[in-house]
Amino acid sequence: MLLPNCRGVFGLLLSLLLASTPVLAIWPAPSSISTGESTLWIGSGLSVTYNGKILPWTFGYEPKGSKFSSSEIVKGGVARAMKSIVQTNFVPWMLYNRMELETTEPSLLKYKTYITHLDITQSGTDTSKTFKPLAGEVDESYTLNVDKSGKASIKAVSSTGVLRALESFSQLFFQHSKGPFFYTKSAPVSITDKPEYDHRGVLFDVSRSFFPVDSILRTIDAMAYNKMNRIHIHATDSQSWPLEIPALPELHQKGAYAQGKSYSPADLAKIQQYAINRGIQPIIEIDTPGHFGIAALSHPEIVAGWDSAPWSAYCAEPPCGQIRLNEPRVDPFLDKLMNDILPRVSPYSAYFHTGGDEVNFNMYNLDPTVGTNDSAVIVPLLQKFIDKHHARVRKAGLVPMVWEEIPADYNVTIGKDVVIQSWLGDEAIASLTAKGHKVISSNYNYWYLDCGRGQWLNFGQAEFDTFYPFPDWCSPYKNWRLIYSYNPRANLTAEQAKLVLGGELAAWSESIDDATIDDILWPRASAAGEVLWSSPEGRTQLEASTRLAEFRERLIARGIKSGTVHMPYCTQGSNSTACQYL
Amino acid sequence: MLLPNCRGVFGLLLSLLLASTPVLAIWPAPSSISTGESTLWIGSGLSVTYNGKILPWTFGYEPKGSKFSSSEIVKGGVARAMKSIVQTNFVPWMLYNRMELETTEPSLLKYKTYITHLDITQSGTDTSKTFKPLAGEVDESYTLNVDKSGKASIKAVSSTGVLRALESFSQLFFQHSKGPFFYTKSAPVSITDKPEYDHRGVLFDVSRSFFPVDSILRTIDAMAYNKMNRIHIHATDSQSWPLEIPALPELHQKGAYAQGKSYSPADLAKIQQYAINRGIQPIIEIDTPGHFGIAALSHPEIVAGWDSAPWSAYCAEPPCGQIRLNEPRVDPFLDKLMNDILPRVSPYSAYFHTGGDEVNFNMYNLDPTVGTNDSAVIVPLLQKFIDKHHARVRKAGLVPMVWEEIPADYNVTIGKDVVIQSWLGDEAIASLTAKGHKVISSNYNYWYLDCGRGQWLNFGQAEFDTFYPFPDWCSPYKNWRLIYSYNPRANLTAEQAKLVLGGELAAWSESIDDATIDDILWPRASAAGEVLWSSPEGRTQLEASTRLAEFRERLIARGIKSGTVHMPYCTQGSNSTACQYL
Repeated sequence: MLLPNCRGVFGLLLSLLLASTPVLAIWPAPSSISTGESTLWIGSGLSVTYNGKILPWTFGYEPKGSKFSSSEIVKGGVARAMKSIVQTNFVPWMLYNRMELETTEPSLLKYKTYITHLDITQSGTDTSKTFKPLAGEVDESYTLNVDKSGKASIKAVSSTGVLRALESFSQLFFQHSKGPFFYTKSAPVSITDKPEYDHRGVLFDVSRSFFPVDSILRTIDAMAYNKMNRIHIHATDSQSWPLEIPALPELHQKGAYAQGKSYSPADLAKIQQYAINRGIQPIIEIDTPGHFGIAALSHPEIVAGWDSAPWSAYCAEPPCGQIRLNEPRVDPFLDKLMNDILPRVSPYSAYFHTGGDEVNFNMYNLDPTVGTNDSAVIVPLLQKFIDKHHARVRKAGLVPMVWEEIPADYNVTIGKDVVIQSWLGDEAIASLTAKGHKVISSNYNYWYLDCGRGQWLNFGQAEFDTFYPFPDWCSPYKNWRLIYSYNPRANLTAEQAKLVLGGELAAWSESIDDATIDDILWPRASAAGEVLWSSPEGRTQLEASTRLAEFRERLIARGIKSGTVHMPYCTQGSNSTACQYL
Repeated sequence: MLLPNCRGVFGLLLSLLLASTPVLAIWPAPSSISTGESTLWIGSGLSVTYNGKILPWTFGYEPKGSKFSSSEIVKGGVARAMKSIVQTNFVPWMLYNRMELETTEPSLLKYKTYITHLDITQSGTDTSKTFKPLAGEVDESYTLNVDKSGKASIKAVSSTGVLRALESFSQLFFQHSKGPFFYTKSAPVSITDKPEYDHRGVLFDVSRSFFPVDSILRTIDAMAYNKMNRIHIHATDSQSWPLEIPALPELHQKGAYAQGKSYSPADLAKIQQYAINRGIQPIIEIDTPGHFGIAALSHPEIVAGWDSAPWSAYCAEPPCGQIRLNEPRVDPFLDKLMNDILPRVSPYSAYFHTGGDEVNFNMYNLDPTVGTNDSAVIVPLLQKFIDKHHARVRKAGLVPMVWEEIPADYNVTIGKDVVIQSWLGDEAIASLTAKGHKVISSNYNYWYLDCGRGQWLNFGQAEFDTFYPFPDWCSPYKNWRLIYSYNPRANLTAEQAKLVLGGELAAWSESIDDATIDDILWPRASAAGEVLWSSPEGRTQLEASTRLAEFRERLIARGIKSGTVHMPYCTQGSNSTACQYL
């Protein structure tokens, strides 16, 4: 059967056709896919070639170091795909008709045709840009073919494309209920694929809550399963400074939550390398000039209004604190900070995020170097601040990113190179792109994953009735269906649409930590992952739900504690359309 | 310092006084507690006596079998408390001031006074009622004293009270950052405690999603940490029949989600015994006559309207199916069913829940034995059904429970022995108790934990705009503050209030399974746990948040993947009131 790019018309029909057997549910949906009905088996004896040479892969292989080589990256990708296939796969009882798994999965007693070879051909040559591309600088497209005789092949322009292909390959197979046997019932398979957006990210806030390195690495893995390619690490905020800056060690020594709750240079490098080996670019953010309060514990001379009360008069959440805007000691501090961190970022990323959200002008009443909330005074100072700060970023060979308030709300002029992260919605994106700015969207109405679970603040008796029943500012909770309905390029001209490079799911961590981050992110970030990877043509909630439910089981099998898409009643074979509102 | 029953006035003051050190945060709050400022240590060498005799406990001890003995139960309780103290404890860095853990936790180099003995005295004698009490039949009160010299003692009337005391005891201690050393800084400790409500439960829906036995056992443990005492297992529903009934084996053979996704008699007994050993009564529900569709796969002759379409015309969610109301084959079927399950329930419970929610009268148009939706026809049939069905329950020595629609919406007369589970809110409770009925509350506006995360149904293009942005019927999400604000006895006369036996948190599992059940239940069910255990006098959100945040860390340490209460910024020492809206 054929699942063309324009799937909408066929979606429901296909769901019905496929009703009695697990759908071949590649997530996110490829540009085109055709499948058959032959069974093929696969095992850990798979021989892999890369550009005609044997690629000797082993389980658990992880490339080391900061020099990235195409063949090492591909070798790691093969190792992970094979781990997904033969070590962390799942028996799809929840995808077959009730009680029909045993009678409809392929017989172990018949002659088995195995996939014995996977030939990988990379037509282009990776450059250093491949491993830290600006949006559009790497070609992630690929083709994947598995013929009936068990010959599998991947073709891609870049090693990143090969990684995407290997991920799709890993999603072809299920585990047999009778033991460690792995099969697809859908051969031959032919996939042609490429991403819709260049920037497909998750914002991971390691400041409000501290996350162990392993938590970040696990999330990078899950992102790779979704073919996402940017992990934005919101590394510092007013609540804590977990990022070790060896030139300014007192920042984390006084500002981390506790001893050991910080990221050493080795930790940071490990995270960055781990991400790049999975085709994901790490983007580090040190938010300025707002969201900077905690630095007051070690450098009070550069911070205005630290922990000022009542906090709601001066900042969006406690504790308050912004960088002083007219204080001569700020530039030497920022020079030192950036001279330390930027050389540790530039080997791994094309970008550095300078923050810029929620700068509170009232706070500058408390800044002894400003002493007013008058924007006529503040904006020129802010302009100077941004100019100098972005110059630091550019000097290190990096492109600055900012939150949208900097250009949109504060009227600060920024370079056309800058990528703006918008969170305030469609109008903001329309306005920014109309001015020719490059934008990524984290529209809070759709893609703020922390929303809708109620206030994280406490309320005394005086405020109790006003805030009851304690919804948070960005309620409701963003169900995956809502997330999936979002089109970052909606209602834009073709010219403007091109400037929307992609988007990021935001997981602000006032009320999230390692215990529940998986449930917060998945499968909801997967829904956005498909919006960002797959063509919007013909995608529907109904068609997606079946595939997403299957993909969710892969996430669980791979150790990601994703929330559900559906109860098994809705995922089982002939019920694939039963859980529709009718 | 003294934390009397009437804490309200002192709550904020206390929080401030305790600001620089972890609060002695027993959760749920005891009736009264006084603490000092001496440090005591504890280790696995603790000697325990029970009624004057040495109690030889060992880690991991679990009483076996269906004959419950007080000393065995206490031995298991001691083993678990000691595991919590010395094996699954935590270093409370998130409760001390930032970076002050190492300087303010007790020194390992000074002379250590150890708690070497714990003397447990049970003044009453347990009876068989102790292990399967009706509401009010077991005295759960206790006192706990730890003097400065390290002598600890527990006094209680029942072994259940001893278990509650051991739980409080286990919450006195923290782990030292330098290794496996365990201390309290708050000796002497004196606690007097008893529950506010007799029925403190969680409804666990194992039908919509299948949960492994371990998942249920883990939840029972977490409930015990919260001094909860009823686990209501919603064992069957229209989506699946996971409960094995040996007399009617085709029910699970055809109705479970898959082979192996069912509870054998041994599984059920294991769950029941595990619960009772933790002072928790298991209550089994087989929902009738609605929510019964799945039985049609094996017994179509007793089911009306199985999987009828469009489902929304005939039931609350797919697939539809109700027991036929005037079909002679129903009684023999139910006799067989109940003769099988009730003798497996009665050794462990005083109750059996017969369901009764969401009976859809339109469905009886599809019932060949009724053929109308006329309540004048249906109600007398329903009355007959309930009379016969409750007679079966009573004959087995059990008290029936029902959902409130049976008496409230369908005007069916039920016995005064029956406990009614209300979910529709305060008015329903007022009306039922006014008629003299015993009630437990699962008010969906507060205590439905699955709510507010959006629809679990899919929407086609025709319904898309109508249901966008896809909120579920019981939005918003029930934040712990909202849950905590609920008073099941609000606005009732004293006479009516006495009839409110307690309540249950409901975790309906259309969109929950084992991967995320912990995050759904905790810490939110803990908030209700305190409502049900602790006196409402003087409880405030502000005071509770500090203790709940600490208790949440105990849950995490004990392997329960609870959601957060606060980011560490809000839980650290002097910030205990910083995250208030001001």
